[in-house]
Amino acid sequence: MPQPPDGLLARTLAAITPVGDTFTPLAAARQNSLTKPPGSLGMLERLGSQVCRIQRTVTPSVARKTVLVFAADHGVAREGVSAYPPEVTPQMVLNFLSGGAAINVLARHAGARVVVVDMGVDHDFPADTKGLTIRKVRRGTDTITRGPAMSRAEAVTAVEAGIEVAAAAIADGAELLATGDMGIGNTTPSAAITACLTGRAPDRVTGRGTGLDDAGLAAKVKAVERAFAANIPDPTDPLGVLAALGGFEIGAICGAMLGAAALRVPVVVDGFISGAGALLAAALNPDAAGYMIAGHRSVEPGHQVQLDHLGLAPVLTLDMRLGEGSGAVLAMHVVEAAVRVINEMATFAEAGVSGR
Amino acid sequence: MPQPPDGLLARTLAAITPVGDTFTPLAAARQNSLTKPPGSLGMLERLGSQVCRIQRTVTPSVARKTVLVFAADHGVAREGVSAYPPEVTPQMVLNFLSGGAAINVLARHAGARVVVVDMGVDHDFPADTKGLTIRKVRRGTDTITRGPAMSRAEAVTAVEAGIEVAAAAIADGAELLATGDMGIGNTTPSAAITACLTGRAPDRVTGRGTGLDDAGLAAKVKAVERAFAANIPDPTDPLGVLAALGGFEIGAICGAMLGAAALRVPVVVDGFISGAGALLAAALNPDAAGYMIAGHRSVEPGHQVQLDHLGLAPVLTLDMRLGEGSGAVLAMHVVEAAVRVINEMATFAEAGVSGR
Repeated sequence: MPQPPDGLLARTLAAITPVGDTFTPLAAARQNSLTKPPGSLGMLERLGSQVCRIQRTVTPSVARKTVLVFAADHGVAREGVSAYPPEVTPQMVLNFLSGGAAINVLARHAGARVVVVDMGVDHDFPADTKGLTIRKVRRGTDTITRGPAMSRAEAVTAVEAGIEVAAAAIADGAELLATGDMGIGNTTPSAAITACLTGRAPDRVTGRGTGLDDAGLAAKVKAVERAFAANIPDPTDPLGVLAALGGFEIGAICGAMLGAAALRVPVVVDGFISGAGALLAAALNPDAAGYMIAGHRSVEPGHQVQLDHLGLAPVLTLDMRLGEGSGAVLAMHVVEAAVRVINEMATFAEAGVSGR
Repeated sequence: MPQPPDGLLARTLAAITPVGDTFTPLAAARQNSLTKPPGSLGMLERLGSQVCRIQRTVTPSVARKTVLVFAADHGVAREGVSAYPPEVTPQMVLNFLSGGAAINVLARHAGARVVVVDMGVDHDFPADTKGLTIRKVRRGTDTITRGPAMSRAEAVTAVEAGIEVAAAAIADGAELLATGDMGIGNTTPSAAITACLTGRAPDRVTGRGTGLDDAGLAAKVKAVERAFAANIPDPTDPLGVLAALGGFEIGAICGAMLGAAALRVPVVVDGFISGAGALLAAALNPDAAGYMIAGHRSVEPGHQVQLDHLGLAPVLTLDMRLGEGSGAVLAMHVVEAAVRVINEMATFAEAGVSGR
């Protein structure tokens, strides 16, 4: 595997350690002391244990939550692979900033902060745009059906931007991160990355995105196949895969997951686009997967392929396919519930309740 | 079907109307005007539409939430059908009142009020016990393997108590209810009721409850079979089924669902015990099912049978099997998210976002 260049990415990859099992028995002992039959809270107990192991404590906290929404445009969006025109990307960024999008509503409901990052939207936002973090690599990728989306240097830039955005959110207090995306056309690069890294055929991991009809879906599968033919990506070279097939927001999502793992912060993965970033992160350092929580199972057919590859079980299955981090932020409530159970429930001894 | 006696139950059954479809197109128009691809929020859109239809508005509200936890004891608990001794029922009621149980933690997290109701715990709580609603029918049911759990008059009393408790919560402002249960041994009557009302064999709907081993499970299936032999319940007579096989808390849960439906308030059904109450409610008036939301899918094998019979799709599948209303209260966050999406998201026109 070609090595990433010396610098932030290399240091971050080196800083990621396995989640480890030291706190597994301690978390189990705590859970089993609480006034409920052992195991009766199911996934809540597994999530609670995971957070204990990540944070290395039996009194974990995820009260401070942030969702990182990375936006970018895609050359391939002009090839008829989306039901929506590319100008929707900057329009939705402005919608995020004014608080009217689904992610804003769901983040308010979860008590999570929203950080909106321009990674490469094909629009020049003023530098002082309130609430927008501008880490633009450039205005949209090149068209992957004809050649690489970006240079290898740009791929590193995108990933490192994600690392820095995650680290800044954590420095601001975030104890639980989630990732989200905006980018018209971005299920196409996500499908291409997924096919490349999991070895599945393009038609097995390519779906209808925001609502393609049968002809649109067929054209999209063809676009993924042409992207493979034009780039011949090497699955053992994750940065090369990102450069060939990627998107700037997908690279940043990958970086955010690496940055979170390096700082031992759990990160809730949203749907198919975040899943592509998660595949890249786990390809760069397999230990990163231990810090991931799959927020939900998207209806995109390639998403289950991603989850299987990563060994993640989704918290929610609500037939969602919106992106933006919407499924991840909804799942934050469940993750926080798992943590509150550990911290706030009475033990059998405290409550004077008889055992089995 | 024998008719229920004149009185609160009869009046409540008569007051329940079909949810109706008047608001279906209005809710759909609203959802489709919001800045997201149509249908992309999946179950959130279906839940939002259901609440619009129930509340007859396109600006629904479920901000004020209450979970009703009904507790009672069961004669059959002394026949080795539970992993825990019967004294745990009053101990857990006290745990609810002091805020240390799972339902307390999860209700705080959801922003829901907890109402604890003694429907027939085998313990005399002082009449002034803070936070406890005492609607005790008597101290535990008779043993269903030998004869009826209760008289028909007691069954009506239990159901009517549930109606009144739900009505009181709604009068206090609740816009969304959930049901929960506490009662050592109560998966056995729930399995018996489920087998009777759905026509499934006892061994298909009887599970391990709080954690039985194989021998315990076999004994529990036998207990359900003996309850059938001792009572010969008539599935077309729901009150007779409750009297023969039931529990006082199961009757109250049934009543709470009828009371919520009569007042057009959505009610989140918890797991297997609440599901038995839901089956009884829908048997008494099939229109009641339209007001129900299945909070989660329990690991109890009979729960999916209940959901199929009721035509309900669970919001969450988290491998939970605790009861108390724990799964229902977790699902309240998703129901409220669905409602907030309708009320708070920007439309394409408001946000200046292009359509397809």
